[in-house]
Amino acid sequence: MEKNGNVKEPEVNGNVKESSKPNSNRKPNNRNNNRSNQNRDSKQNNKNNSQNRNKNSGGRGRRRQSTPVDENLKKFVAMNQEGHKQRLNPHFKLDLNSKDKIRITPLGGLGEIGGNITVFETQKEAILVDVGMSFPDEDMHGVDILVPDFSYIREIKDKIKAVIITHAHEDHIGAMPYLYKEMQFPIYGSPLPLAMIGNKFDEHHIKEHRRFFNPIEKRKVYEIGDDFKIEWMHMTHSIIDSSSLAITTEAGTVIHTGDFKIDHTPVDGYTADLHRLAYYGEKGVLCLLSDSTNSYNPQPTPSELSVAPALDRVFSKAEGRVILSTFSSNIHRVQQAIQYGIKYGRKICVIGRSMERNIEIAMQYDYVKLPKNAFVEPEQISHMNDKDVLIVTTGSQGEPSSALFRMSIGEHRHVKIKPTDLVVLSSRAIPGNEGSISGMLNHLQRAGAKISHDKDIHVSGHASIEEQKLMLRLTNPKFFLPVHGEYNHVVRHKETAVMCGIPERNIYIMNDGDSIEVAPKYMRKVKTVKSGKTYIDNQNNHKIDDDIVLDRQKLASDGIVMLIAEVDGQHAKMLSKPKVTTFGLVADKQDKAFAKEMEDVLEHFLLHIKDGLLENGRALENDLRQVVRKHIYRKMKKYPLIVPHVFVQ
Amino acid sequence: MEKNGNVKEPEVNGNVKESSKPNSNRKPNNRNNNRSNQNRDSKQNNKNNSQNRNKNSGGRGRRRQSTPVDENLKKFVAMNQEGHKQRLNPHFKLDLNSKDKIRITPLGGLGEIGGNITVFETQKEAILVDVGMSFPDEDMHGVDILVPDFSYIREIKDKIKAVIITHAHEDHIGAMPYLYKEMQFPIYGSPLPLAMIGNKFDEHHIKEHRRFFNPIEKRKVYEIGDDFKIEWMHMTHSIIDSSSLAITTEAGTVIHTGDFKIDHTPVDGYTADLHRLAYYGEKGVLCLLSDSTNSYNPQPTPSELSVAPALDRVFSKAEGRVILSTFSSNIHRVQQAIQYGIKYGRKICVIGRSMERNIEIAMQYDYVKLPKNAFVEPEQISHMNDKDVLIVTTGSQGEPSSALFRMSIGEHRHVKIKPTDLVVLSSRAIPGNEGSISGMLNHLQRAGAKISHDKDIHVSGHASIEEQKLMLRLTNPKFFLPVHGEYNHVVRHKETAVMCGIPERNIYIMNDGDSIEVAPKYMRKVKTVKSGKTYIDNQNNHKIDDDIVLDRQKLASDGIVMLIAEVDGQHAKMLSKPKVTTFGLVADKQDKAFAKEMEDVLEHFLLHIKDGLLENGRALENDLRQVVRKHIYRKMKKYPLIVPHVFVQ
Repeated sequence: MEKNGNVKEPEVNGNVKESSKPNSNRKPNNRNNNRSNQNRDSKQNNKNNSQNRNKNSGGRGRRRQSTPVDENLKKFVAMNQEGHKQRLNPHFKLDLNSKDKIRITPLGGLGEIGGNITVFETQKEAILVDVGMSFPDEDMHGVDILVPDFSYIREIKDKIKAVIITHAHEDHIGAMPYLYKEMQFPIYGSPLPLAMIGNKFDEHHIKEHRRFFNPIEKRKVYEIGDDFKIEWMHMTHSIIDSSSLAITTEAGTVIHTGDFKIDHTPVDGYTADLHRLAYYGEKGVLCLLSDSTNSYNPQPTPSELSVAPALDRVFSKAEGRVILSTFSSNIHRVQQAIQYGIKYGRKICVIGRSMERNIEIAMQYDYVKLPKNAFVEPEQISHMNDKDVLIVTTGSQGEPSSALFRMSIGEHRHVKIKPTDLVVLSSRAIPGNEGSISGMLNHLQRAGAKISHDKDIHVSGHASIEEQKLMLRLTNPKFFLPVHGEYNHVVRHKETAVMCGIPERNIYIMNDGDSIEVAPKYMRKVKTVKSGKTYIDNQNNHKIDDDIVLDRQKLASDGIVMLIAEVDGQHAKMLSKPKVTTFGLVADKQDKAFAKEMEDVLEHFLLHIKDGLLENGRALENDLRQVVRKHIYRKMKKYPLIVPHVFVQ
Repeated sequence: MEKNGNVKEPEVNGNVKESSKPNSNRKPNNRNNNRSNQNRDSKQNNKNNSQNRNKNSGGRGRRRQSTPVDENLKKFVAMNQEGHKQRLNPHFKLDLNSKDKIRITPLGGLGEIGGNITVFETQKEAILVDVGMSFPDEDMHGVDILVPDFSYIREIKDKIKAVIITHAHEDHIGAMPYLYKEMQFPIYGSPLPLAMIGNKFDEHHIKEHRRFFNPIEKRKVYEIGDDFKIEWMHMTHSIIDSSSLAITTEAGTVIHTGDFKIDHTPVDGYTADLHRLAYYGEKGVLCLLSDSTNSYNPQPTPSELSVAPALDRVFSKAEGRVILSTFSSNIHRVQQAIQYGIKYGRKICVIGRSMERNIEIAMQYDYVKLPKNAFVEPEQISHMNDKDVLIVTTGSQGEPSSALFRMSIGEHRHVKIKPTDLVVLSSRAIPGNEGSISGMLNHLQRAGAKISHDKDIHVSGHASIEEQKLMLRLTNPKFFLPVHGEYNHVVRHKETAVMCGIPERNIYIMNDGDSIEVAPKYMRKVKTVKSGKTYIDNQNNHKIDDDIVLDRQKLASDGIVMLIAEVDGQHAKMLSKPKVTTFGLVADKQDKAFAKEMEDVLEHFLLHIKDGLLENGRALENDLRQVVRKHIYRKMKKYPLIVPHVFVQ
């Protein structure tokens, strides 16, 4: 209750004015009076008060006397203030004279969503935390995934003692096979990430590298190399078996949150290990690296469990088949969907390679328990009643290769969309995927399906502002490095940290490749190492050279012009009409007109050609390319690729 | 990032269908090919894929081969599951064979807002936690405050070793003077509550009881009696220097949250001591008592600091005087208001006894620092420019005795409301006060003032659902007793606790007077002790007997009838017309008619009077009262007090 001090005075006779009277005029002597005496007494007092009001009402004629200060109490105020200072600045426990330091270098994950990989280095040793991939922008044609540039890792290869994994999302483990094809280190992580990395190794035909696995127990401290002590602390996120890390070196403890939300009611009951975070926070944390993804969200991120009522609602009303699509790695979401399917008497058909694989792993390793007889094969669906079927599938991002997309365009072998189907997207559009999702929904609705797009049917896996604050307050770091987000997310996270008492000078906004040195006394950027992306063609799991991608971008935006001409070297004249071929620049019906133009340009060029140029084929083609480029730019404001071949006879 | 496993495949030639092709048909051998080779290769592959699609597209003809289980990983899954069990059920650390137990008995604060007082008892000793008052309902006429019934405290008086205070709100310390006039114990608390209790003792002329003060340092464990060890843990709330308690006896540790919110950005920077809560949670907590006030609120309770932008907005626009009213105990609110007043060049005038007193204490004890020259006396206001004045005052609940109320009705000596005044209520209506606040606003507006009633200008001091969950998860108790709230608040808090993994059988919904025994093995109600309220008349700080209040209720609802009659004992006849006086029953102009009616009733009564009744005055009056009551009820459906005096001559 917040009502204080200002105690109500009574409303005698319902007349408010009568009641404003000072306490001093009442004698505390009528406790044992009988009723009528008290009544009389009251009336007298009312009269007294009316008189007194004139002297003394309305804010009191003189100010109240000050109460003297109790010096003993005041001493305790000071002692408690000192106590607060100690508990809120555990940094005094750091040895400021220490010469030890740790160097932190993100090679991916900053200024972008995805591709998380960070190097932690002491003088002699290093570890990598996570080795993730990311997805290409729309203009990286033919590129399927991006893998961080390993140049710096190659450089310090001999220092690296281990790869440390926080959780099993692609943006934290997806680049592992690409790294391990080239070089190998011991891999430490909890079982799920290792199992998923194992599957990747199998797919990439490097099964033998599973021998580098070192599964860990959470809440135990592992000594890695001579310099690192690492504890995995359980964390809640949109994938099970996630962890934050406490990385202790001689310089102090660095907390790396990994990806997290604070889910107080997770589906498996395994809450975030706030107690270990508090333990380190109490001991004194040198530096915190924390997830910035949802830096803008003022509302607490809802619990995974909050999806349940929405699922129940959807399943209770569905009359035909339910086709539910979500991120295949969100095992708890899939588990909840399956449970509500079972509740409403449906059999479960899992379709989609990654979905099948992830459910298999989750069940194989006892992360979830689901009755085996609840599942049916895709071949069986057509023989079943529609309302007995729940299809759980991939494709919530409208990926063209996904099962749901194939269903939407009638290309799936086992599932043809029917007008009684209910499609549930239990997911959010990852920025950039809105178009492909919308396209898929068009296809699905054209095929007759109903779409349930309940907002409550998805929750985020990342901490919102209040949870970021809790993390900052629990770990109470001296230095802060907001990570995992685009530039604006990271900057917003910095503002939150400043509100939570971290001095601005103790926060650094990193970019990929920044090498930050952290010591008890200071944090500063010491150098920039090479960072960037390697393009991967998913069809062959191989690298695509950067210039290929640049060419593809040019082709895609401006097209190409090919010119083949025969020239009489003696007279600087064309021997025949040049052959002009274009793609992506001129419409078919204008081909002839364009060829004529090129002919004119070429003729004009030959007319003014400099002496000696005709002898140098390469210079000739270069000059010609320039002339054509100028002409096309003047007419079309485009810079196509121009490929001239001139045969001088 | 939540995108996992389900890697996009490329859109070759922009034709989606072309792209669904299995990986196995690509040979990873074209890494070093030149550009044109790669192009050719791509085209060939596209053709291959188109053919393959017919065999193998749409969910794959056969199910994927299972990956064999890695038994070592599986072993670590089991080990981690055991680890989770250990950390989430610290109760295994409690000694189930212990014969020790603690008895918890709330004497106030349940089923109501206010009057918090709880007894904690071992076999031989007891402590009281908080001794608060509450406010009367509307029908408790002439009652100013309510104080818990001390009967049970009297009963166990000799066991009581101390009074323990959590924070300085009236509902936690307001009944202290009434208790201490009767009996005294050592008082332990942080300095602010003690200073405020000291002021109360001074007002009640029991200054000498200040000698019972034992100020505490937070984060230290105090041994109280032989059986209790108590630690005060700093907590954020709408009053500074609040605490949660860790009460340890042989039976285990009980955490009593006191009133709390989790404010990560408190005005003084002193955040809630989550680390000590986590410390006890990790050690194993026997029982948690937690604040239920905001059990229904799904949004996080905003930080006190979030009021600042609203205050800035209001002050930046105000052109005349600003009159800001809030709870006088909310020192940080007052401090922020004063700071924005100063920012916009205003001098501060504090009006209202409790407001003056609380600011004085806060400054005397260095809880806040404000420049003394920023303050002016009420007498000075009239000589100042309106836009140089900020009046900070009491009355945010429309209390008739408050300064703001007196201003609103033109009864304040120094402050007459002007049309240029801006009145800011930085508070929320406490349930039940809506009417009086609305009335005061009417008065203020009639006097011409503008009212700023920005919603963002107040925040609650109590934990919402997410913060209640955090408390439950940090302390991780075996048993749970939701407290501080009306019945429905407490029940809602129970539901939240069940979601957070506390078994329903381990939660008890207490009522005032319930004596709950908690042991490592069980929790059960063992008896009910006397509880209730003592009515206090604030004018004399004395108790009002219950029957007085009942009479006042009757008078207020049904009025009174006085009958005085002279009867001829021999002939059972009236000697003169009876004198009839009524209050609150009959309108003045109907007095005569009503007197006539009473005369008829009396005559009829005397006509049928039983033998011997005339001799027994008391019985006569009783019978007469019944007859009159019946008559009045038949006619008016009212049960007034009936006071007959019959003189038998």
